[in-house]
Amino acid sequence: MTRGPGGVSRGPGGRAPRVAILAEGQFARATAKTAIGVLRYAPFEVVAVVDSTRAGTDAAECVGVGMGVPVVADVPTALARGATVLLIGTAAAGGRIPDEYRPALAAALERGVAVWNGLHERVLSDPALAAAATRGRATVRELREPPADLEIGGHRRRRTGAHVVLTVGSDAAVGKMTAALELVAALRRAGECAAFVATGQTGIAIAGSGIAVDAVVSDFIAGAAERITCDAAEKADWVLVEGQGSLTHPGFSGVTLGLLHGCAPDLMVLCHDSTRAAVKAHDELPLRTFGELLRIYEDAALWSRPPGSPRIPVVAVALNTAALDERSAARAVAQAAAETGLPAADPIREGAAGGDRLARALLAAAR
Amino acid sequence: MTRGPGGVSRGPGGRAPRVAILAEGQFARATAKTAIGVLRYAPFEVVAVVDSTRAGTDAAECVGVGMGVPVVADVPTALARGATVLLIGTAAAGGRIPDEYRPALAAALERGVAVWNGLHERVLSDPALAAAATRGRATVRELREPPADLEIGGHRRRRTGAHVVLTVGSDAAVGKMTAALELVAALRRAGECAAFVATGQTGIAIAGSGIAVDAVVSDFIAGAAERITCDAAEKADWVLVEGQGSLTHPGFSGVTLGLLHGCAPDLMVLCHDSTRAAVKAHDELPLRTFGELLRIYEDAALWSRPPGSPRIPVVAVALNTAALDERSAARAVAQAAAETGLPAADPIREGAAGGDRLARALLAAAR
Repeated sequence: MTRGPGGVSRGPGGRAPRVAILAEGQFARATAKTAIGVLRYAPFEVVAVVDSTRAGTDAAECVGVGMGVPVVADVPTALARGATVLLIGTAAAGGRIPDEYRPALAAALERGVAVWNGLHERVLSDPALAAAATRGRATVRELREPPADLEIGGHRRRRTGAHVVLTVGSDAAVGKMTAALELVAALRRAGECAAFVATGQTGIAIAGSGIAVDAVVSDFIAGAAERITCDAAEKADWVLVEGQGSLTHPGFSGVTLGLLHGCAPDLMVLCHDSTRAAVKAHDELPLRTFGELLRIYEDAALWSRPPGSPRIPVVAVALNTAALDERSAARAVAQAAAETGLPAADPIREGAAGGDRLARALLAAAR
Repeated sequence: MTRGPGGVSRGPGGRAPRVAILAEGQFARATAKTAIGVLRYAPFEVVAVVDSTRAGTDAAECVGVGMGVPVVADVPTALARGATVLLIGTAAAGGRIPDEYRPALAAALERGVAVWNGLHERVLSDPALAAAATRGRATVRELREPPADLEIGGHRRRRTGAHVVLTVGSDAAVGKMTAALELVAALRRAGECAAFVATGQTGIAIAGSGIAVDAVVSDFIAGAAERITCDAAEKADWVLVEGQGSLTHPGFSGVTLGLLHGCAPDLMVLCHDSTRAAVKAHDELPLRTFGELLRIYEDAALWSRPPGSPRIPVVAVALNTAALDERSAARAVAQAAAETGLPAADPIREGAAGGDRLARALLAAAR
């Protein structure tokens, strides 16, 4: 069993869950973001991935992570491997449960297997799935379900001395959660007390707690971010908040700004996928340059503070170069550093050396 | 019966509603924003305001608008004046139904009177109110209830030739809805086909339709704004979108940016309350100067567009000078014009002349 920096997620009764990931027809780098995050970081065992179109392969062959986890054809095969949970491992914009997932979900629920769902659509809102859950006495964990008692943001102050870091992005789905988790690990290697704050469904599945800020009533985005950040700052000296979306994304920018003002970071780390040229699903929108992105995030971070407040700096650039060859990746890292004047690294490709380089930038900025 | 620029709201069966406004203990300028908006603009008759602490006065004495509408002590007195609807006329941040309103709401529902509610908390989530509604066979209209089929924003294009104008603010509750409604009226006086797009509970009560963007799941703020804007642009050449919050408000900025990117305006009008010095409920946060606010909104409007897109200008300043004397008000208008180099007006204090001045700025910018 691997143990990620997020903490340990346990099922009812305290037994560690044994998770199968449902990614039918979509178990690939571009579409299985949740699956990849969980395979890389979750503190519980993943026993199989369900995707009939890739059955017989190894997870690592499909998405570059999860060596030794088999991809199987259907839910019964996953259950035969001891799965006690079926986690939906993909997340299309809009958050509907794909119709082709419903039979597999029904099969799991009917057999008493818990379903973990990170989509906006609730599993039990489908009468067929609700009936299956009743028949199988199965539970559903809605990862995006917000707490009932959210408040408007802007009123709570966090513990003095805690450093809050937000990972921000050139776009959606560029590696903001990954960067935050790798920074927590690197800071811990450096002897610091660091915590990860999950703000999205995958982070919540990994960490076992958090609030999906894109799923709260929009008046409460900042309040939700403020709550989880302030709570974490009570216990840790470094609070790494998982970013969401991008200020330059026409669909998600509101969530991004609410999160930015709600968590009120001291420092930011800019995340970018080196193969991304345009906003995801918006070919008409080329991404901004690093220089523009730094200005945009640093400007916006100040808007909710008193005029004349010191600038909240972006202090490092975390790159995702997974799709590049070794040489192009090194060039992308060097170019990001040159364009921004900041330390840059791909904390996955470069391993601990990459994460440590980014963490040193945080430690230096906090001195 | 007055007829506002928003359109006519009718009850079931097509009969125009006769509305009593509930503002118990809070029927004052600072706290009764919804009541004031409805008294000024609603196309239906308001028969009374319920506030036992001000019973016996006239609405206009309390909030400067609603001459001839009596303030009464309780719901039965309002019903005796023929009310068929009880509208909650105040809105505290956070959106809970005040406990002191619950007896009045129960009294109305029990007698078969419909309740219109613009708060986040739903009336029927209170078991006592649900029971009263069942006993009285009364209906509840949740003004903030979003449609069930919202989408991620950024994909729909509006009709070419339609001009979209967003009212943006130096803060929350400074007069953005009022400015939008007055601009619709002024553009109509100028012979233009103009429509009001409601994005908040008061605007929806007035216009009879719209989406409360602060009440949607936050992933869908931009999509909701895009839908109502594009729909309105099919029928009108000028689409005046009611702004929400402020990019500089620590609690509401996410809603503001999502709305800005979702409605994707061609032009903006900056709204400001001339007596406001700090962010509402945040004395530690002085408001930004006009110059800073113009830069902030014009910068942010471009983030979701291709790099190099032409600037989206703020073309006029709409002031709320209600709390100033005549001379101070004139000075505030002159100062706003001088500081920004833009036409400025208080469209309420100055009447049609003020609204027309602002509308001319829109017409000139669109030429």
